[in-house]
Amino acid sequence: MKAVRLHAKWDPKPDFKLGPKDIEGKLTWLGSKVWRYPKVVVEEVPEPKIQKPTEVIIQVKACGICGSDVHMAQADKDGYILYPGLTGFPVTLGHEFSGIVVEAGPEAINRRTNKRFEPGEPVTSEEMFWCGICRPCAEGYPNHCENLREIGFDVDGAFAEYVVSDAKYLWSLRELENVYTGDKLFLAGSLVEPTSVAYHAVIERGGGIRPGDNVVILGGGPIGLAAVAILKRAGAAKVILSEPSEKRRNLAKELGADVVVDPTKENLVDVVLDSTNGMGAKLYLEATGLPQIVWKDIEEIIWRARGVNSTVVIVARADAKIPLTGEVFQVRMARVVGSQGHSGHGNFPRVISLMASGMDMTKIISKVVKLEEIPEYIIRLQTDKELVKVTMLNP
Amino acid sequence: MKAVRLHAKWDPKPDFKLGPKDIEGKLTWLGSKVWRYPKVVVEEVPEPKIQKPTEVIIQVKACGICGSDVHMAQADKDGYILYPGLTGFPVTLGHEFSGIVVEAGPEAINRRTNKRFEPGEPVTSEEMFWCGICRPCAEGYPNHCENLREIGFDVDGAFAEYVVSDAKYLWSLRELENVYTGDKLFLAGSLVEPTSVAYHAVIERGGGIRPGDNVVILGGGPIGLAAVAILKRAGAAKVILSEPSEKRRNLAKELGADVVVDPTKENLVDVVLDSTNGMGAKLYLEATGLPQIVWKDIEEIIWRARGVNSTVVIVARADAKIPLTGEVFQVRMARVVGSQGHSGHGNFPRVISLMASGMDMTKIISKVVKLEEIPEYIIRLQTDKELVKVTMLNP
Amino acid sequence: MKAVRLHAKWDPKPDFKLGPKDIEGKLTWLGSKVWRYPKVVVEEVPEPKIQKPTEVIIQVKACGICGSDVHMAQADKDGYILYPGLTGFPVTLGHEFSGIVVEAGPEAINRRTNKRFEPGEPVTSEEMFWCGICRPCAEGYPNHCENLREIGFDVDGAFAEYVVSDAKYLWSLRELENVYTGDKLFLAGSLVEPTSVAYHAVIERGGGIRPGDNVVILGGGPIGLAAVAILKRAGAAKVILSEPSEKRRNLAKELGADVVVDPTKENLVDVVLDSTNGMGAKLYLEATGLPQIVWKDIEEIIWRARGVNSTVVIVARADAKIPLTGEVFQVRMARVVGSQGHSGHGNFPRVISLMASGMDMTKIISKVVKLEEIPEYIIRLQTDKELVKVTMLNP
Amino acid sequence: MKAVRLHAKWDPKPDFKLGPKDIEGKLTWLGSKVWRYPKVVVEEVPEPKIQKPTEVIIQVKACGICGSDVHMAQADKDGYILYPGLTGFPVTLGHEFSGIVVEAGPEAINRRTNKRFEPGEPVTSEEMFWCGICRPCAEGYPNHCENLREIGFDVDGAFAEYVVSDAKYLWSLRELENVYTGDKLFLAGSLVEPTSVAYHAVIERGGGIRPGDNVVILGGGPIGLAAVAILKRAGAAKVILSEPSEKRRNLAKELGADVVVDPTKENLVDVVLDSTNGMGAKLYLEATGLPQIVWKDIEEIIWRARGVNSTVVIVARADAKIPLTGEVFQVRMARVVGSQGHSGHGNFPRVISLMASGMDMTKIISKVVKLEEIPEYIIRLQTDKELVKVTMLNP
Repeated sequence: MKAVRLHAKWDPKPDFKLGPKDIEGKLTWLGSKVWRYPKVVVEEVPEPKIQKPTEVIIQVKACGICGSDVHMAQADKDGYILYPGLTGFPVTLGHEFSGIVVEAGPEAINRRTNKRFEPGEPVTSEEMFWCGICRPCAEGYPNHCENLREIGFDVDGAFAEYVVSDAKYLWSLRELENVYTGDKLFLAGSLVEPTSVAYHAVIERGGGIRPGDNVVILGGGPIGLAAVAILKRAGAAKVILSEPSEKRRNLAKELGADVVVDPTKENLVDVVLDSTNGMGAKLYLEATGLPQIVWKDIEEIIWRARGVNSTVVIVARADAKIPLTGEVFQVRMARVVGSQGHSGHGNFPRVISLMASGMDMTKIISKVVKLEEIPEYIIRLQTDKELVKVTMLNP
Repeated sequence: MKAVRLHAKWDPKPDFKLGPKDIEGKLTWLGSKVWRYPKVVVEEVPEPKIQKPTEVIIQVKACGICGSDVHMAQADKDGYILYPGLTGFPVTLGHEFSGIVVEAGPEAINRRTNKRFEPGEPVTSEEMFWCGICRPCAEGYPNHCENLREIGFDVDGAFAEYVVSDAKYLWSLRELENVYTGDKLFLAGSLVEPTSVAYHAVIERGGGIRPGDNVVILGGGPIGLAAVAILKRAGAAKVILSEPSEKRRNLAKELGADVVVDPTKENLVDVVLDSTNGMGAKLYLEATGLPQIVWKDIEEIIWRARGVNSTVVIVARADAKIPLTGEVFQVRMARVVGSQGHSGHGNFPRVISLMASGMDMTKIISKVVKLEEIPEYIIRLQTDKELVKVTMLNP
Repeated sequence: MKAVRLHAKWDPKPDFKLGPKDIEGKLTWLGSKVWRYPKVVVEEVPEPKIQKPTEVIIQVKACGICGSDVHMAQADKDGYILYPGLTGFPVTLGHEFSGIVVEAGPEAINRRTNKRFEPGEPVTSEEMFWCGICRPCAEGYPNHCENLREIGFDVDGAFAEYVVSDAKYLWSLRELENVYTGDKLFLAGSLVEPTSVAYHAVIERGGGIRPGDNVVILGGGPIGLAAVAILKRAGAAKVILSEPSEKRRNLAKELGADVVVDPTKENLVDVVLDSTNGMGAKLYLEATGLPQIVWKDIEEIIWRARGVNSTVVIVARADAKIPLTGEVFQVRMARVVGSQGHSGHGNFPRVISLMASGMDMTKIISKVVKLEEIPEYIIRLQTDKELVKVTMLNP
Repeated sequence: MKAVRLHAKWDPKPDFKLGPKDIEGKLTWLGSKVWRYPKVVVEEVPEPKIQKPTEVIIQVKACGICGSDVHMAQADKDGYILYPGLTGFPVTLGHEFSGIVVEAGPEAINRRTNKRFEPGEPVTSEEMFWCGICRPCAEGYPNHCENLREIGFDVDGAFAEYVVSDAKYLWSLRELENVYTGDKLFLAGSLVEPTSVAYHAVIERGGGIRPGDNVVILGGGPIGLAAVAILKRAGAAKVILSEPSEKRRNLAKELGADVVVDPTKENLVDVVLDSTNGMGAKLYLEATGLPQIVWKDIEEIIWRARGVNSTVVIVARADAKIPLTGEVFQVRMARVVGSQGHSGHGNFPRVISLMASGMDMTKIISKVVKLEEIPEYIIRLQTDKELVKVTMLNP
């Protein structure tokens, strides 16, 4: 079958030391310190086979390109990849996907029916392959699994014709048949994973809101836009999005934003205070990846707003120090919360139910492409900010 | 000025004992044990005056009839009123109201501006006059104040031309000017109080829901209907309402219900399980006042549903024993929560913000009447179930 | 090896229907409807072997007799066992145990080290064998697993020389070496399971308390006594226990109870109100198994106490209807919560840490016996209420 | 009567602008920008009189010196006071106090009895005079009152023979008579306020702990030491305190610390990881006032510890930027919470109940002095770190 594979050279920087979970030449938790000269190609590879009784083979229907895919394929001036995390190359990319079950191991339970998966079930998969045994998993925190693997990073992913996942990471998309048919179901299904990242950030980690609260989302990428849609549905009185791209601001409006701000031209602090009668927001989501830049505005809003008891959730990853003013968080009764992942906590099924009840995230898909076009678009996404989500659709 | 006043005779039943907070001939916490031969009349009374520096005089614009008003005016076969709670007669009825500030004491702070109230401010008032000092108030639980007074029950209420409240119970309706003008603003404003009762029940006491959860509301009176509107806005995937009246079921649909059930003709348990793919609901609201009747269905849904971790909120008052099966709540990881009141917890301002962002509760107003018609409608509401909310509008 | 085995005859009552998870002649979820003429014997059985790569063989050191063991072996007048739940006979009894790892499968991860279990590790095991895949497990609620198995009920248990468990249910007792040596470590270790049932009830399901709150525990069996110890350590100002047995009341005092009440001679309501300055308690634990009897007192305390916002947790299993007065829970801002199980939520490791920091639950062990004596004590415990916990200790 | 009064000159720095709540020459929210040449003297002043019906006159028995008192009286090289907050001079200092009611206004309700205060009631007072009306107060957040006044800062305080407070800020100390008599009761009572600051930080804002969790307290001043006592009583398995002063470390041990660290000689990170079996802590309290210095260690512990889901509470005030690494809080599932104040949330009564059940905070009193000695000790405390708490005791 055909698959989009990333190859790179294991060539660690001088300061790199092999970590306890790293495997020489194959796997590292610090990708950008090790992998050089990335190359994304469409290759012919063998079709996957079931190796464990709980595994499932899925015919891939749709798979979106994530920012991580772009950063794994993008090199710095020395040729090292930009993506800093867990990676094991060569690997088939693709982790935001949906498809149809074609074969299931004897112990591969479909939790929709609590029976073995049957061919034909439409599904999506969590990207984080948590172990279910380690201490964080045992406490109910699978996003912090000590034995994490990640599909599309160090396990073969879904920019391919077929992919293997384990039943415990799969969620049926049957509920989406209420609202979608054909390809649209699978395009929506491929967005469950990134939408769950936003859901986990604002609802689970951020504690959600009470209907009637205001929220501010910084950054209109797929995560920020999903947060707009989720929080408007969670009853936000005012959803305010700050984002330089006009196209993304317009998408935010379609998804429910009440106020959109171009931070390159408008003063976010003033807009938030004006549009909330001076109260400010209950929840702030940092989804830009540039916390060191937006933090000043966040703190100024919190400081000047009359509303107290707010939460800032950091969901975008960034290699940066944030200059936190303790006084602001003390005097205004605020907090900062870090968010990672999407698994557990009932996130996936609730996102699917939201989609089944009308939350249409497919609006963020800028372009639907073929498998063969994926390498090209992984490159184009480095620079073309008009593309929000590019999604592969298999025939 | 004109006012709608309730008179009754202090004639305690033999088993009644004067309680520690009761006042002979004037005030009791057990109304139905004491007051006989109620009579509601329109009378001429003096205009109220400010007696404390924190008081505010309000020109009443709109005031709804509550079920409590009906029960205070309704006698049993022995002539005793049906309403069992705090009452001090004669009193001007009316506690679901809005109006315009006409005069404010020197210390009457408008918390919208943190300055003294100015004439012209549109406002609504909490009905519960909590003291702010006692132990429950000091812990942040004003609905359980040990020194509670209630406007329209033992303090003169708002079926009148003017009414007095204390600044600490008032909330500005200025925000509603975004969406409403003229009388509609005040009609909406008069619904803030009952909507806050529902909000307190499902959001504060029930803990709310996560977007994508399902809910079941039993009873389509004003509280049940407000809960429908609030929970749909809180992101419920499926809001299911059980209510015998077709008119009320239709209103529920307008307010956001996804599924409505006539419990006299359909099997609620089956409908809930069918429409939730067997998962059941996360939140159940008992708003019928007949818990002994609906409880069996609630427990059967919880028992048969695959979803665990649910909450039953009891908001309707009832003199009844509920046959709780502990096993159901243990095996299915469930809980029961009692709810009373609407004050505190940021309930009022969030309800106002919800209305200002489009939640139109005026749909439940079946009829707008004049002050002089209130006595007639307080009687008609005893029997006419097609009337949901009847609201006085002053010129 | 020797094992204490329960045999019974599969002889369903006329009204019994085979459930979807039942297996004819072998397994049922409704034990008391099916199994007749129970007999507990010491038998020679083959030593267990590892069948899956995640399994571990444990040399049993200590194992306590639970009330469930007694009820499985006790017949009603028609010969049917009293225990109503999941059972598959013949089976080796025993689920409150500790021991030493003697062999571990290649994928049997010790979550203390995140490496394969090594022989010599002291361990205890959860009793609930949750699947980790079904919907409740995926949400983080393993006690409500849809594919539950239970060691000592339908899987061979620990009244034996060796027992098999899966790594994911095991918790290292290494931390207890700080405070215990030799047999005492294993006696304490065998109490982690029942203590976790109490911990789950009062801390996870009941939401715990704030230091300075009061609590009332009804019932001084092992669960009630563990709750006394846990809640005193959680900062309860007053821990009040109601229990008819003087021996158990004295144990409660040793474990931290401030006030003990003999409900057959004293008025619990008065004692609670007197000893809390009229405030009442924040948390009430029903651990008697007779909720229909104690409920009246619980409601009367809640009604008369000045403190609002309390929680009643039901942990003991009972086939009874509880006459809940909704009004009490509304007016006093209270709730009722059902609790089941002990797994997940970080319960086991925190109980072990509490024991390692000085909470000595071995005080509740009334008698230490040999494997051969277990059948006799399972009978004696039917009647002898002076025996609190009887624990087998292997040489 | 005699009183310890602070005088200073209103001499604003050039960059100071009168704020909206400031009063020229009398009151400012930015003390260190305005007041110069502070002087603390014992003066004869008139005895206070009741001005409002809710006020109470208290004969002061005990009053502790707080760090704020020291900073109000301490000048920088330009003569400006160090204390940066709300101040109105001249004022009688002293806000950590207890005493005996001598006179009460007609509406001064004692919430212990819900009746008017009677002479002879032993009481302590909140320091924060919240209004009870503004938006934060209405939501239940009195520590963030928009109309805050502070006794001992801009309202005459308790280093005097008599002091006036309002009934709504007073808490009876009657419960302490269970454990204390005579002066000890009042010394303990004067510590309720600072202990409530710690309680609010770790229990209300930090969310408390579950019994069996570990905690790390940075800083062994009165707040840090109170946190040690509270958290040990809340069931912490290991309470670890980091503090350079040996005397304070020893006090921490007396109050329940399991491990104490001298950060000038030991590596805090290693000690925490070693003493928690590598798990780290659930709660970290920044109580040093030097967050920019200790932050690195906090983040390193969180990063290296195996336990996830931790909270850092900032309680000490500091004019500093904290270099927060978002990645640490994302990957390790952590959060940062700011804490201010002590009022509301049931903090005071629970602290009193804790003291009444044996938590003896009087251990931190290094020296008991007379009113006349207070000015001297306010100066000595600038430099003498062996003095933890110095407390005035009136005859």
